[in-house]
Amino acid sequence: MAVYTDVSDGALRAFLSLYDIGDLTAYRGIAEGVENSNFVLRTTGGDFILTLYERRVDPADLPWFLGLMGCLSDHGLSCPRPVVARDGQALRTLAGRPAAITTFLPGVWPREVRVAHCAPVGAALAALHMAGQGFGAERANALGPDAWPGLVAACRADGDSVQPGLMAELDAALAEILPAWPARDDLPRGQIHADLFPDNVFFLDGAVSGIIDFYFACTDLLAYDIAICLNAWCFDADGTFDAARGRALIAGYESVRPLTDAERRALPVLAAGAATRFLLTRLYDWVNTPAGAMVTRKDPLDYLKRLRFHRAARNMASYGL
Amino acid sequence: MAVYTDVSDGALRAFLSLYDIGDLTAYRGIAEGVENSNFVLRTTGGDFILTLYERRVDPADLPWFLGLMGCLSDHGLSCPRPVVARDGQALRTLAGRPAAITTFLPGVWPREVRVAHCAPVGAALAALHMAGQGFGAERANALGPDAWPGLVAACRADGDSVQPGLMAELDAALAEILPAWPARDDLPRGQIHADLFPDNVFFLDGAVSGIIDFYFACTDLLAYDIAICLNAWCFDADGTFDAARGRALIAGYESVRPLTDAERRALPVLAAGAATRFLLTRLYDWVNTPAGAMVTRKDPLDYLKRLRFHRAARNMASYGL
Repeated sequence: MAVYTDVSDGALRAFLSLYDIGDLTAYRGIAEGVENSNFVLRTTGGDFILTLYERRVDPADLPWFLGLMGCLSDHGLSCPRPVVARDGQALRTLAGRPAAITTFLPGVWPREVRVAHCAPVGAALAALHMAGQGFGAERANALGPDAWPGLVAACRADGDSVQPGLMAELDAALAEILPAWPARDDLPRGQIHADLFPDNVFFLDGAVSGIIDFYFACTDLLAYDIAICLNAWCFDADGTFDAARGRALIAGYESVRPLTDAERRALPVLAAGAATRFLLTRLYDWVNTPAGAMVTRKDPLDYLKRLRFHRAARNMASYGL
Repeated sequence: MAVYTDVSDGALRAFLSLYDIGDLTAYRGIAEGVENSNFVLRTTGGDFILTLYERRVDPADLPWFLGLMGCLSDHGLSCPRPVVARDGQALRTLAGRPAAITTFLPGVWPREVRVAHCAPVGAALAALHMAGQGFGAERANALGPDAWPGLVAACRADGDSVQPGLMAELDAALAEILPAWPARDDLPRGQIHADLFPDNVFFLDGAVSGIIDFYFACTDLLAYDIAICLNAWCFDADGTFDAARGRALIAGYESVRPLTDAERRALPVLAAGAATRFLLTRLYDWVNTPAGAMVTRKDPLDYLKRLRFHRAARNMASYGL
């Protein structure tokens, strides 16, 4: 939960006067998301989300993120659409922070993932990948394989305090994963979400009604996004892989875009890499966040069990796929 | 900001199935309020607030609070109206907490108080007092004068660490205020809000559109509620009394319910008592909340300057009223 920056009603009214979206009737800070300050705005013109960009988001990346969201929305994906002011600009400054207004999406994110969620998520992910073909600008994945050795180094001093032997296990995993990582021309590339966890997917009546939070999006292997979703959606609370969810996710994806044979072969190493990425960033936050700080730390060890599962997998059959 | 308890979408849908307010289309935790967990609910029937009652609210008091809100709403006050389920009950259990749904109120609370806010607030407070005459059940003020010596005792060990000499000054203030406190039959009594700070009053187009957060409400001297508002609305950020705001607040109040002479005479001691109450509860939280806990501590010394001002006041003229 987080609202790092409050916005005075006077400053907000002045800000809204630059737009043609009606007069302010209500706004409330949202207690979700750990990266930015988000507010639900209600105006006489409808409902919107106001985001003030805080830590971790590089202001230089914001035009790319907002451009991608606009393009995906243009191509029919249900995602937040940046709202431009009368001067044509969506990215502005409010309360000393970069700020943007986007459309409000209905729906509820699933606190408990069921098999029935996974096919719609897979199909929505593929639709995102297809819609992303309309957006030509590239953004490198700042948390891709090139970044992992540096994260391991930054965690080395304190990482084993989380679990003895953890750093040696991560060294071994990287020694295995990095040489096996597909080259950028081996697999289809494009715009990926890169953080499509359940709290970023809204459902309504069993269908995906919205995909949010594009602030880790980047240009990378499309199948890596599937690998992230396998980690995020297809494991039980105790860290056991649920093959029924995995099958539904892949089938949903392939109902929109069939995987190539090379992508299928690469999925185990991509999934191991995705588990490593979330393990490492959570571990980094864990050892660098003071206990009691106003941010909820996520347990890095949730991803160690996933990593072990993926490293033991030989091929898609190991997933029951 | 606070959402202490998240609610799963499955549990929320089951809960909503007990009501006739439509199907869930969205819900978001609100990053406001430090006492309870609040969510904005959107259903096909409209917008609502879901509250899960957490710390500081005694479950035994909830029927009184909800009953008062229902009565005030019946009498035309714009306040959250408890929504009853099909069984006629508004107070239920969700996620292991007492929980209730209330109506959503439009409007925005003023981050920067101006003179123009004060007459509408005064009038709304008087309207609340008049509407409260329709609610006969009494609730004692758990944070009234009887509670202050105990709070002083609980702060004695650590209070001077906040400011040297603070506890001696509080002892002197109580020795002056408590003997001068009006007896319960000396002044008009009734239902008071007892926490009508700016973040509990929504405005729309310059008028009060809603009063929220009745979880300190109780049965006490009506003029004590005015004294609380003088403290909450009529001092500058540096703690200097703004007579123009005070005049507007009182004039607004008296446009609905004129004060008696006894109430006017009592206002300085009531205002000193109100400053003492907020100073003491903030001080108690300050010395009992670990630094870095997930609650924003409010500076108790904001109220020391107010207390000194009120103790120096002889009568309403000292306020420029």
